[in-house]
Amino acid sequence: MHTTAMQSVDSYLSDIIAAIEPLRPAEIALADADGAVLAEDVTTAWPLPGFDNSAMDGYAVRAADVARASQDDPVALPVDAEVAAGDTRQLTVRAGRAIKIMTGALLPDEADAVVPVEWTDGGAATVLISRPAAAGHAVRRAGDDAKAGDLLLSAGTKLGPAQVGVLAAAGIGVVFARRRPRVTIISTGNELAPPGSPLVPGLIWESNSYLLAAAARQLGCDVTRHPTIRDDADEVLAAIDAAAQAADLLITSGGVSMGGEHDVVKAALSRSAQSGAAQSKATQSSAVRPGLGSVTFRKVAMQPGMPQGFGRVGPSETPIFTLPGNPVSAFVSFRLFVEPALMALQDHKAQRVARCRARLAGPVSSPPDKRSFLRGIFNDEACIVTPLTGQASHHIASLAKANALIVVPEQVTGLPAGELVEIMELP
Amino acid sequence: MHTTAMQSVDSYLSDIIAAIEPLRPAEIALADADGAVLAEDVTTAWPLPGFDNSAMDGYAVRAADVARASQDDPVALPVDAEVAAGDTRQLTVRAGRAIKIMTGALLPDEADAVVPVEWTDGGAATVLISRPAAAGHAVRRAGDDAKAGDLLLSAGTKLGPAQVGVLAAAGIGVVFARRRPRVTIISTGNELAPPGSPLVPGLIWESNSYLLAAAARQLGCDVTRHPTIRDDADEVLAAIDAAAQAADLLITSGGVSMGGEHDVVKAALSRSAQSGAAQSKATQSSAVRPGLGSVTFRKVAMQPGMPQGFGRVGPSETPIFTLPGNPVSAFVSFRLFVEPALMALQDHKAQRVARCRARLAGPVSSPPDKRSFLRGIFNDEACIVTPLTGQASHHIASLAKANALIVVPEQVTGLPAGELVEIMELP
Repeated sequence: MHTTAMQSVDSYLSDIIAAIEPLRPAEIALADADGAVLAEDVTTAWPLPGFDNSAMDGYAVRAADVARASQDDPVALPVDAEVAAGDTRQLTVRAGRAIKIMTGALLPDEADAVVPVEWTDGGAATVLISRPAAAGHAVRRAGDDAKAGDLLLSAGTKLGPAQVGVLAAAGIGVVFARRRPRVTIISTGNELAPPGSPLVPGLIWESNSYLLAAAARQLGCDVTRHPTIRDDADEVLAAIDAAAQAADLLITSGGVSMGGEHDVVKAALSRSAQSGAAQSKATQSSAVRPGLGSVTFRKVAMQPGMPQGFGRVGPSETPIFTLPGNPVSAFVSFRLFVEPALMALQDHKAQRVARCRARLAGPVSSPPDKRSFLRGIFNDEACIVTPLTGQASHHIASLAKANALIVVPEQVTGLPAGELVEIMELP
Repeated sequence: MHTTAMQSVDSYLSDIIAAIEPLRPAEIALADADGAVLAEDVTTAWPLPGFDNSAMDGYAVRAADVARASQDDPVALPVDAEVAAGDTRQLTVRAGRAIKIMTGALLPDEADAVVPVEWTDGGAATVLISRPAAAGHAVRRAGDDAKAGDLLLSAGTKLGPAQVGVLAAAGIGVVFARRRPRVTIISTGNELAPPGSPLVPGLIWESNSYLLAAAARQLGCDVTRHPTIRDDADEVLAAIDAAAQAADLLITSGGVSMGGEHDVVKAALSRSAQSGAAQSKATQSSAVRPGLGSVTFRKVAMQPGMPQGFGRVGPSETPIFTLPGNPVSAFVSFRLFVEPALMALQDHKAQRVARCRARLAGPVSSPPDKRSFLRGIFNDEACIVTPLTGQASHHIASLAKANALIVVPEQVTGLPAGELVEIMELP
C-alpha cells in the first residue's frame, strides 16, 4: 500500500499552516465585523463609562444630606430638576436639595450618591427619603470599567457578540481586522446530478458542495457554491481561475484519485504545469506548477481521506484544497485541514480545538500505519462513545448520525470496548 | 427589594417556552436548509448507494478468474471496455475477461470483485493481475449505507453539514422544515449615539444592537438590526409593528426599568393596552394587552437582568423580548431566555446546553434570593474558573474578556476560592 511514501496527518497539516499567508487586514465596519479577527490591539480613547452616571432611577443628592434619613424620620429635599438618560445638560445639585435622575443619566455636579426611587415617596416637587445612601451609592464612575488608554481587545481576537459590543460601547465604528473568509466550493464529476433530479443508475446526486458549504458557513465563512463542473480540464481550470479572484480559499471535491485522465482536478492542475521535467506520475507526492499556481498532491496516512491536494492558485495565491470525492473523506478532511487553514487565514491562534477522551462502547479496527477517524455517537454525560456501523468513506447516512470522530492512532490496528480513545466532537 | 414578588429564572423560562408557538414548517430548498430543523422524519426512497459500484480504480472481474493470480504467475485477462464514474451503460464482464473501472463507476453485471490498479500492470488491452481479489473486494453494494425506506433523519433534527450532505446524497432537493429564525433587533434610547460619532457627555455609543445581532447570527439566525429608536412611544410602536411582520422573533433593548414615561418600551406597550382596569403600576408583574398584542413585564430573581419583558405582538403573534438596556444584562438575558426561545421556535429539542462544573480561582459574592451570572475566564484543561473584576451590569469591557458565566444559586450569597460552581461556557 506504499505506506512508506505516505505523509503523516500532523506533518501534512504543518505544511498547510506554514503555506498559509494570513489575509491582508482591512478596515471593516463594525456592523459587519462579527467573525472577523482583530489585526491590531484595540485600546479605548475614552474611559468606559465616559462620564459619571446613575445606576438606578432615583434622586441625585449629596450623601451628607440624607445621612440621617430613616423610615420614621424621612428627610425632605426639594427637587430642582429631572435628568434622564440622553440629557446632555451638566446640572449641579445644591446643598440640601435633590435632582430626580434616571438610569444612565449624567450625574449632576456636587452629587455623590443616588437614592433609589424605592427608598423614597417618588415626589416631584419635594421628595421624602427614608433611607440614607452612602457616598457612591448607585453611582457608576467614569472609567470604572476601563480607563482611557486601556487595552480592550488584543490582536488575534475573534470578534463575537461581547467583543463587537465593547467596541461599539467605546465608540469604535470601524475595526482593522481580517474578514470572515470568503470560501468557494467546487464539486467535479460527470457522475454528479443535482438533488431533486430523477434517479439514473450510474449517476449519483451531488452532495459534497452542500456538505462543505454548510461546514464552512457553520464556521462563519461567507460561502459560494459553484455549479458542478463536468470532467473537463478546461472547465475546471476556468472555474478555479475565476473563483480564485473572488475567494479567500477554494475547495474542490472529487477528481483526485488514481485514475489518470478521469481524475480531472489532478489532471487539470498537472496539465498546465510549466516544468514538465521532474514531474512524477502524480500518484505519489507530486508538486506541480501549473500556470495557475502550485498544487501538491499527496497520500496522507489517514482513513478516510488518503488522497489530498493543497496549494495556492491565481494572482493572489489563493489557498486551494482538492479534497477527495467520497463525502465522508471530504468531511473529515475539512475538519482536519480546512478548518485550521481558515483559522490561519485570519491569523486566529487562540481558538481551542475541541478534543477530549471517552470510553469505547464497542470495539474498533483500523488499518496499520494510518490514523483512523471513525464516526461515533458521543454521550457527554457518561463520557462514552459508540462506534457507528458503516465506517466506509461513502457511508454518509452513518456520518449524518455521528456527533464525534473517534481517533485511532497510526500504530493501533484495533481497540476493544472499554478502551479510552481521543475523540473530536463535531459542531 | 420586593424579592418575594420576583419570578425565578426557571419559572420565567418555563413561561416563555410554553408561550412559544413553533414556526410553521415550510418547503425549503436544500441549498438554503442548513440551520433549519426538520419538521418530519426523512426516509430515503432509494438505497444508498443507489447501485453497486467500485470503491477503487482497477478492473472489474469475476473473482474466480483471478483466484490463482500471484506475483510469480500473474493472470492475464483481456480488457473489453472501460467504465468511469458517470457512465450510465450497464456493461457485463464475460468469463475470463475484465473491464477497466474507476472509483464510483457502475459495477458491470457478472462482476463480483474489483482488482485495484495497484495489483496489476495497468494494462489497456490486456491486464496482468498479480494478486487474487476475493468476491466483494472493493465493491460497494447498493444499500450498504441505507436501504430504501430507511430513516435517514428524524423530525427535530437540526441540519448541519453531514445532514444536508445525506439529504443531497439521497436526492432530496427540498426539505419540510422550520427555517433559521429571522430576528430583528431594536435598540431604544435618547442617550444612544452611533459608534464612530463624536463623544458627547450625557450620550453613550449604542452597543446592544451590535452585541445582540452578533449573538443571534452566531446561532445561525438571519438578523436585521433596526436603526436606533428615540424615546418616543409612537416610534417604538411603529417599529415593533413593522418588524413583527417580517421577523420570527423581536428583541428590543432598553426602556424597561422603573422610570415611568422615560421607559419608553414599557410605556408604549402599556399605553396601547385595551384593558386599563386591572393594570398594576408596571413595576411588578404587569400583563398588558396593547393593540399590538400582549407583553408581560416582570422582575426576575437574577443578577444581572432583573427587569424582563416577554410577549407576542402583531398579526402572527411574533414573540418579543424587551431586554434591559445594560449590555451585560442584555447579553445574559439573551443566553438564558432568547437562545432557548429560538430553539423552541424551531421545535429543536435535542441540543444539549453547554454547562459544566469548575473550581473557583477566587471568591465570589451574590445578592440574596437572586441567581447570579458572573463573568469569568474558564481554563478548560485545569477546570478552573477565574471571576473577572468588574461584575456590574454596565461592565462590558469585562464581559468582552469572559469566556464563561459563573452561576451562583439563589440561596448562596458568597463562595470562597476552591468551591465547585456550575458554569455556562460562552460560544
